Amino acid sequence: MKMESMRQRVGDIRGQLRSRHLAALILTRSANVTYVAGFWGEDSWAIVTAKAVYLLTDSRYTEQAQKECVGARIVERKELIAPAAGKLVRKLRLKGAVGVESSTSVATFAALKKGIDVPLKPVGEIIEHLRSAKDEEEAGAIRQAAAIAATAFKRAVRHAKPGVTEGELAGILDLEMRRQGAKVGFETIVAFGPNASRPHHQPSSRKLGETDTVLIDFGARYKGYCCDITRSFFIGKPTAAWRKAYQVVEKAQAAAIDAARAGIELAKLDAIPRVVIRDSGLPVYGHGTGHGFGLEIHEIPFLREKAEGKLKAGQIITIEPGIYIPGKLGVRIEDDILITTSGCEVLTGQCPRLSGK
Amino acid sequence: MKMESMRQRVGDIRGQLRSRHLAALILTRSANVTYVAGFWGEDSWAIVTAKAVYLLTDSRYTEQAQKECVGARIVERKELIAPAAGKLVRKLRLKGAVGVESSTSVATFAALKKGIDVPLKPVGEIIEHLRSAKDEEEAGAIRQAAAIAATAFKRAVRHAKPGVTEGELAGILDLEMRRQGAKVGFETIVAFGPNASRPHHQPSSRKLGETDTVLIDFGARYKGYCCDITRSFFIGKPTAAWRKAYQVVEKAQAAAIDAARAGIELAKLDAIPRVVIRDSGLPVYGHGTGHGFGLEIHEIPFLREKAEGKLKAGQIITIEPGIYIPGKLGVRIEDDILITTSGCEVLTGQCPRLSGK
Repeated sequence: MKMESMRQRVGDIRGQLRSRHLAALILTRSANVTYVAGFWGEDSWAIVTAKAVYLLTDSRYTEQAQKECVGARIVERKELIAPAAGKLVRKLRLKGAVGVESSTSVATFAALKKGIDVPLKPVGEIIEHLRSAKDEEEAGAIRQAAAIAATAFKRAVRHAKPGVTEGELAGILDLEMRRQGAKVGFETIVAFGPNASRPHHQPSSRKLGETDTVLIDFGARYKGYCCDITRSFFIGKPTAAWRKAYQVVEKAQAAAIDAARAGIELAKLDAIPRVVIRDSGLPVYGHGTGHGFGLEIHEIPFLREKAEGKLKAGQIITIEPGIYIPGKLGVRIEDDILITTSGCEVLTGQCPRLSGK
Repeated sequence: MKMESMRQRVGDIRGQLRSRHLAALILTRSANVTYVAGFWGEDSWAIVTAKAVYLLTDSRYTEQAQKECVGARIVERKELIAPAAGKLVRKLRLKGAVGVESSTSVATFAALKKGIDVPLKPVGEIIEHLRSAKDEEEAGAIRQAAAIAATAFKRAVRHAKPGVTEGELAGILDLEMRRQGAKVGFETIVAFGPNASRPHHQPSSRKLGETDTVLIDFGARYKGYCCDITRSFFIGKPTAAWRKAYQVVEKAQAAAIDAARAGIELAKLDAIPRVVIRDSGLPVYGHGTGHGFGLEIHEIPFLREKAEGKLKAGQIITIEPGIYIPGKLGVRIEDDILITTSGCEVLTGQCPRLSGK
């Protein structure tokens, strides 16, 4: 990560600290630590003060931290992480309250409190909000992840032949992403036939039939950033019911992509595909219409019925309406879009749909 | 899961509730919810009272919960999970304090507190301690996971030829586990040459050389239970330094496996391989000697220098000493053992070592 982006991020956090009258912020969430310190290892925290950023890690990671950290001072701990953070905070002689991410566990918060001599305040999602708008480097990594995912998908679907199991097809797709130097972004979902009616189906030993349907929800992770794509297609001849559902989902998704731009209310965008599906007489999906992603697979913003706030330029989100009829069928189409002031750019267009008009 | 095991587990939890004067316990950790309710989905909590076990889930999972739950009453929520739990607790008219797992986030704890009219107390690791000793069904699933992992390893190492990348070999191994109907237990580590000196190395695009070394740390997950195996081997002819390190690690691991039995102190067992390595003049590893696993890849008990307590019969743990020389080499051998009153049984013996005497 570039020093310039890091300075910007840390500057934004310091602005938040000043407005909340906090002397420092302790970051315990792994993706947030990566975001402010450039460090990709585990079991490490970051502490942001008005003067410096500290990475608190242990000997397993010191070598890696020295290579990766951008602008952060590395502190190697020998004790458990909460007492080590307390020791560092005491040493810094901070004046005023210290914030801790409210995603920290109750047990860790209590352990931290023991070792710190200033007030400790839970603070919600400062970094998560900053992370929601992607800079050029981040958008570039997501573009590359999307290109890799598309290539892997094209190669893997050649194996979508009668007899292959859901688990095997998921494994083949994962391997094709790895062959291109990427990681698997999240656990790949492959669902054949009626299994696709469960949005969170886990790949099983079910075999693909001569006439069957396939739903694949997957993403590559490249330079730490993931993408998130779903494709639904058929083998043999689809039923009229499946084909109708597919066409409605396609239309519903296109309507949302057409409407997506900076400034639109999240709840309003969430509703657009639902209206298309409701009007068709088919059942409306129970999950959100889309979500941000990046270092993590689910990030701010979330398109939900009761979401508050508006889309912002630079955010990258999924648009993923679906139709699910339990025991019968499931169709979902998911693409990733970069929000601009005038509209949006689809980042996952290279990934073939296989079932278009 | 069998109703009988579930009754046993819930009975044990109720004993803990009585001794802590708690009217109920709210479980928020996914593996703990699975353990007491038999449910394998996400975003769901369990509430154990003196009279019943409730699974709090949403419409995405109701169908799945009806199939999977063992002995639990399913409550479908429409609101966010913390207010829904508050509503259920109020409806139950509980008398006395309610416990919440202390692994719950500060934000979630605060949200829960808002909606509950009795005192809320963080409670540490009740279920994690129960989970540490495995029953027959659990041990059976781990045995099957180990058998699948061994077969996958034998098939995948045929591809460990010059030119293959770390990421690709990891993908091939994962695919071979999936081909047998298993899932990937955790992110597979494949490290060639000096990359193995970082115990948490992530598979990269580095290619295997004509003369090289390989470290693979992996596990299958079967019926929800994982195993955890590491093998270190060479391609071509190993250096004298690598061969010496391998022999010392092998001896160190054998000494720990010989000593493992119910009743031995965790810290004492942790120290056994360290002494062997120290006596050889090679550097002693910074990580623990082993850990429990099951529904999660790291579970109680943990073999660490400062660990308190003793091994118990029925616990299944890893024994995984290693030698790491930064920039030069890394060797680790990891097997899984079931603790008995007279010693232990090695569960991962079918997985070939490839570098034995």
